[in-house]
Amino acid sequence: MRTFFRPRSVAVVGASRRRGGYHLIKNLLVGYKGRIYPVNPNYSDIEGLPCYPSLDTIPQPVDLAILFIPAPSVPGVLETCARKGIRRVMIQSAGFAEVGPEGTRIQSRCSEIARQAGIRIWGPNCMGLVDVHNRTYLSFMHPRIHEAGLTPGPVSLIVQSGMLSAGFLADLAGRGIAGIAKACSIGNRMDVDECDLMEYLLEDEQTRVIALYLESVPRGRRLVEMARGSPKPILLLLGGRSRSGAKAALSHTSSLAGDARLSASVLQGAGILLMEDFHQMMETAEGLAMLPPLGNPCRVAILTFSGGAGILSCDLLEREGFVIHELAETTKKEIRRVFPPWMPVANPVDLYPALELHGRVKAYHEALSAVLRDPGFDVVLIHYFAGLERKDLDLPAIRDEARQRGKGVLFWVIGLAEEVAAFQKKAKAVGLPVYRELLRAAEALTAARSWTATQRATPRRGHPHGDPASTERRIRA
Amino acid sequence: MRTFFRPRSVAVVGASRRRGGYHLIKNLLVGYKGRIYPVNPNYSDIEGLPCYPSLDTIPQPVDLAILFIPAPSVPGVLETCARKGIRRVMIQSAGFAEVGPEGTRIQSRCSEIARQAGIRIWGPNCMGLVDVHNRTYLSFMHPRIHEAGLTPGPVSLIVQSGMLSAGFLADLAGRGIAGIAKACSIGNRMDVDECDLMEYLLEDEQTRVIALYLESVPRGRRLVEMARGSPKPILLLLGGRSRSGAKAALSHTSSLAGDARLSASVLQGAGILLMEDFHQMMETAEGLAMLPPLGNPCRVAILTFSGGAGILSCDLLEREGFVIHELAETTKKEIRRVFPPWMPVANPVDLYPALELHGRVKAYHEALSAVLRDPGFDVVLIHYFAGLERKDLDLPAIRDEARQRGKGVLFWVIGLAEEVAAFQKKAKAVGLPVYRELLRAAEALTAARSWTATQRATPRRGHPHGDPASTERRIRA
Repeated sequence: MRTFFRPRSVAVVGASRRRGGYHLIKNLLVGYKGRIYPVNPNYSDIEGLPCYPSLDTIPQPVDLAILFIPAPSVPGVLETCARKGIRRVMIQSAGFAEVGPEGTRIQSRCSEIARQAGIRIWGPNCMGLVDVHNRTYLSFMHPRIHEAGLTPGPVSLIVQSGMLSAGFLADLAGRGIAGIAKACSIGNRMDVDECDLMEYLLEDEQTRVIALYLESVPRGRRLVEMARGSPKPILLLLGGRSRSGAKAALSHTSSLAGDARLSASVLQGAGILLMEDFHQMMETAEGLAMLPPLGNPCRVAILTFSGGAGILSCDLLEREGFVIHELAETTKKEIRRVFPPWMPVANPVDLYPALELHGRVKAYHEALSAVLRDPGFDVVLIHYFAGLERKDLDLPAIRDEARQRGKGVLFWVIGLAEEVAAFQKKAKAVGLPVYRELLRAAEALTAARSWTATQRATPRRGHPHGDPASTERRIRA
Repeated sequence: MRTFFRPRSVAVVGASRRRGGYHLIKNLLVGYKGRIYPVNPNYSDIEGLPCYPSLDTIPQPVDLAILFIPAPSVPGVLETCARKGIRRVMIQSAGFAEVGPEGTRIQSRCSEIARQAGIRIWGPNCMGLVDVHNRTYLSFMHPRIHEAGLTPGPVSLIVQSGMLSAGFLADLAGRGIAGIAKACSIGNRMDVDECDLMEYLLEDEQTRVIALYLESVPRGRRLVEMARGSPKPILLLLGGRSRSGAKAALSHTSSLAGDARLSASVLQGAGILLMEDFHQMMETAEGLAMLPPLGNPCRVAILTFSGGAGILSCDLLEREGFVIHELAETTKKEIRRVFPPWMPVANPVDLYPALELHGRVKAYHEALSAVLRDPGFDVVLIHYFAGLERKDLDLPAIRDEARQRGKGVLFWVIGLAEEVAAFQKKAKAVGLPVYRELLRAAEALTAARSWTATQRATPRRGHPHGDPASTERRIRA
């Protein structure tokens, strides 16, 4: 798989001066460090790069060929790849098994040629690879998607959906949700599938969590085995579970959902976290990358600026089995130092009057230090209003103090738009998860607790941060 | 209640040149059209307004007194109100029943004075009223909250939380969620309560939906009766349902959640929609304000740019009992005009290749017209990517066509941040709901279907738009 992710040279068959064929070249020019060979008999050059009439006229060896040409021309080009010794091919064009019998015939022909020549094929009917950390964009996505600014982060995606590997990434970045490591769009996955990519991503330094959107799980047994041995959390959103959804999946990526319907209990038993929606999956994935292991019972302290939000947090967390009990007497005594005398200290800690008295920096830091030192708590959920005061929390200090105490800290933030965006960015940059809805914060904590339970049931595996066992990255291959 | 919402003159006792007492005056000066009397013996003027040493030195009559002074001073000032004939008082300061026995004693004393003098009291321990359409801000909230821009809209809030009536509104505006009519923060509701305010809001032209955050429902029977007679949807988020949440509610607004715990089935039986989280409540409320009545079965057509999003929409909607069936043959034939020949037409309608062929305006409008004319559908869920193409949909035309056909149209949008924000704004301005997460779109449709069922069970009530019965606004008072 390494050659797909880090090719030394890429040929783009179907490169062009317009639309997708143009985007492929433009996107490669952004950050890809290897050699680029546009291939199209109609051009002499594209974006200053010499253009070749065919693959076999390229004088140098080619690591990876990206094909963006009509489906009927693909088998012929694959034969050229075979002759030229190109062993990795990414077919981004559509018109294969997803469109009916004629496309299925072409796809089978491609399979046959590839098998005989030892070529691995990624796709067809996909948007390829977006590697955010390395700014390597092997995709015909519109350049404005990455120009809008993608956020590098700990979550890698494997998806049977072009949208989720392109437009969705821009949407996430715009909303300050989930930084991305690699997004792999696998389309009809005639050869390279989610298991192949997971094997690579489980070893990938930049990937701490893997999120999958699949429309069927044909290699269910393999997926379950890999999940059982995985030191990194795996989240799965399975599309096509409904009657109408399954029908649509057939014409989308030629996926027969009914064929390999795995029971939720088998998947969950292997530690796979099942998700319901795209954004929910990404926000939960980010929480898993940033939160430490959480036991059960898991005891939560809440710092808030709003009594109502504190109460609702109790309701949402208790419903999920979290414990919100009293603070220790010593903790109360410490917090009382920033409270007005008339106000009793309790959990949730309502900091509003303390903020008025001492400003938010002092109020939050004193209260947070006290609850982090209280041995009765595993996690602190901090409610924060971004805006109104200029001085902001010392987020690296909060992260360090939480780590030192082995505790989880996460934020729920509301506020003025720009200040919220800035706060999200700063907090995530130091590894503190931020949620804009209480429900999502509760979901992330629930997922982290569940993931920890899976890990402890099979103790050889480590947590992606903190736990020394994780450095071994032991994967049963 | 009218005097609270539209006072001809307001005295602010505890007006000041700093903090809350200053914000009250600054906020009034923004859009309030009546006379403003700051009251504070320490100042001669505030923001250019003459300041009075006490209420009884104001030469003119006063409709409403807002009290922002320490709790112990409140009973004395109420006696002055009684003498001066002020019959509406809003107590925004804290330190009453929520803080313990001493505060409870003060609150009882206030109650007594008010009863004897015929004074109605709003609060204490609240943030008052934010009337977005009229820019009347009777609240000590920080001026930056409204300076950031609040969005006028169809949803009125009644909340036992200051945050939800102030900072939260700025947060909603920043995220493009739910335009607000009036936000009423009722605090300890020693006199004026949610039922009193609902009576007013049920008659209020600008309010089409009422959303409540309450920490107990002491007048549960009255609430249920009003909900049964209401032509406007009522949503309720009840805080303090958990053990720890109930305990926190006691010290927040002195609410004894356990006292009047109403069963969910009684509330739902009256047509009240029960919610789980703040943002979810607001997004659902907005959907209810904009969607037409929806029957059961409710048949949904999906237009999408992403096969994966289409499939997931099927899964989420079918789970809630929505029907996603085939398009009529004539509809398919019409849509085929914008499809490439190799692509079969189905529901969800995957417009991606059509967008590539014809641009999105033509592709969306042709497909949408076709499904709106198909008698087999009640609702169209449109997936939209904002950005990349300059030409945008004709949203007023879509709204008109949907209304003419008596069908619901709602959007799920992702995309580039600025373009998404602009699209949200434009769509909501013409009355089309927009969601950024599929789960939320499904929740809104589910709520609208449930609300329609309640209405049909008691046919005297009308839907806030479309249905002629609604104009009667028949409320059992």
